Amino acid sequence: MIQSSTPDLQVIGVFNPGVIRHDGGVLLLLRVAEAPPASADAIAAPVYDVDSGRIEIREFARDSDGVDTSDPRIVVVGGRTWLTSISHLRIARSKDGIQFEIEPAPALSPATPYETFGIEDPRITFLDSTYWINYTAVSPFGIATALASTTDFRTFERHGIIFPPPNRDVTIFPEKIGGRCAALHRPMPEGIGQQAIWVASSPDMVRWGEHRFVAGARDSGWDSSKIGGGAVPFRVRTASHDGWLAIYHGVTGSPPAYSLGALLLDARDPARVIARSRAPILEPEAEYEREGFFGGVVFTCGLLAEEDRVRIYYGAADGVTAVADLSLDEILTGLSEP
Amino acid sequence: MIQSSTPDLQVIGVFNPGVIRHDGGVLLLLRVAEAPPASADAIAAPVYDVDSGRIEIREFARDSDGVDTSDPRIVVVGGRTWLTSISHLRIARSKDGIQFEIEPAPALSPATPYETFGIEDPRITFLDSTYWINYTAVSPFGIATALASTTDFRTFERHGIIFPPPNRDVTIFPEKIGGRCAALHRPMPEGIGQQAIWVASSPDMVRWGEHRFVAGARDSGWDSSKIGGGAVPFRVRTASHDGWLAIYHGVTGSPPAYSLGALLLDARDPARVIARSRAPILEPEAEYEREGFFGGVVFTCGLLAEEDRVRIYYGAADGVTAVADLSLDEILTGLSEP
Repeated sequence: MIQSSTPDLQVIGVFNPGVIRHDGGVLLLLRVAEAPPASADAIAAPVYDVDSGRIEIREFARDSDGVDTSDPRIVVVGGRTWLTSISHLRIARSKDGIQFEIEPAPALSPATPYETFGIEDPRITFLDSTYWINYTAVSPFGIATALASTTDFRTFERHGIIFPPPNRDVTIFPEKIGGRCAALHRPMPEGIGQQAIWVASSPDMVRWGEHRFVAGARDSGWDSSKIGGGAVPFRVRTASHDGWLAIYHGVTGSPPAYSLGALLLDARDPARVIARSRAPILEPEAEYEREGFFGGVVFTCGLLAEEDRVRIYYGAADGVTAVADLSLDEILTGLSEP
Repeated sequence: MIQSSTPDLQVIGVFNPGVIRHDGGVLLLLRVAEAPPASADAIAAPVYDVDSGRIEIREFARDSDGVDTSDPRIVVVGGRTWLTSISHLRIARSKDGIQFEIEPAPALSPATPYETFGIEDPRITFLDSTYWINYTAVSPFGIATALASTTDFRTFERHGIIFPPPNRDVTIFPEKIGGRCAALHRPMPEGIGQQAIWVASSPDMVRWGEHRFVAGARDSGWDSSKIGGGAVPFRVRTASHDGWLAIYHGVTGSPPAYSLGALLLDARDPARVIARSRAPILEPEAEYEREGFFGGVVFTCGLLAEEDRVRIYYGAADGVTAVADLSLDEILTGLSEP
């Protein structure tokens, strides 16, 4: 059992970890979602209060007019959206990458006005002797992406919002490209525009520009509703393929199914897509992927690419963390024209 | 009459100009909106085609299922949104700031994949011997903000997308703050979040970070639906007031009314609001503001603040350009606690 961060809350999910090799083993930075005990009459929204430094519980009667509980992740009350859980980030360590020890306390918890609904979906990039952690910061100001850094995974420095709302699914490349840091990000326009993958560059990880479109949803198939970044991209140089491989998530259907595929991006210009998965490389099949808090979801924030093996850590059904070993050669064989 | 940029199109609006003192006079960079001649049966969407370098006309039967023409600015077809006009930027020059000569050809026209629905709402900031022009770039990729620069208003350099979609109403400060360029911007989240004014900083005008919330819509009154940047902020130092004065637009009601008000921002930390207009400083009253292409709108992208006079150039009803002289002292007197 995973300890909750406070007795008022219960852990309802441990998923979407950032992944990195650290200290001779594997380190996961897990998204731990917590909620108050369920009630038949009321639905609760836990909210971090900046002034008190505590999580407060808002309750809404389930059968009230104007209360929409159709999506288990959120509750909409009179047009305002609240989350039914609040996430923090927790470290787990392993020697073999399979058996993990989870720390009893959070590594990073909501702490700013931009994080009052929680912090989610960390990605870890090692660059310039520093571990850079970007994560989704959720609050009534919107869904944004924030940055923290560490050298030891004991103390963390926060660098604020790097992509303003609405923007999530950021992955920072582990090498500079053309002398600058590079990141994929996923703006979320509505009406005009689509939720799609873009690339940006930065001199310092904090200030980002040169925004360019990379790839969007396709007309049909497993990634036809929207797409977004997944694991941190890694460099591939084989006899047949050269570029950055970005494992991304694609969404289709209603209720939505979240699957994983790959983009091969030009080594020097990651806005240029060389090739893209025809079929998903991983899709919800097992019971813990099809059923759960939000069923039909496999979603990754990190992987380990070592020789031909691509070990993908992923969240299943927004509830648990799973791992799958794929063959790099098979992923590359499944690519075709973008 | 203002010449259209091509015989296929008619000028339907000249509004929302950027404003700067230049060459001993006043220079406006006008948003010129053009559309094909109206048809009773079909509604047209003009779209810039990157490959041909020409504007192509898409037509949709008005009475078809799934064609929504309720907002005159857009047509929604099967869930996809198109604009009913396409805008470019045109220079007008004046000695006295009242009588203008409008150039016969565009200064900046749609030219990139991010501008296929047009370029809109320029703001001009003079900093480091350069005129920086930010404008709204609209396309199926979303509504974003792009940057161009010039030293002579004859040749222009484009610097790409500086704020990814959905983001508009950017105003760049005319001085560096804390050694960095600063800008107000207006992210457009839906569901979680609100359309509100944020501030960001940049080392080079191209890459932006340190995003922080500045001000949002209020619970009631003239700016209760959403707010966004207006004219380029200017520095105020009077006996009673010290800071940046930002004239912004506030929206309320249905159909929406667009009015103008003021924010006084801390001189060193523009994320801190010192004071805010109680009542609008300008609201739609004249017939050309209340009626027109999109009635009930006064909207500014630029002004001239000289001694006590604040000369605001503004778009009225998304159709024409007007000017109003206000007293700085009266604007400041109308401020109260934020």
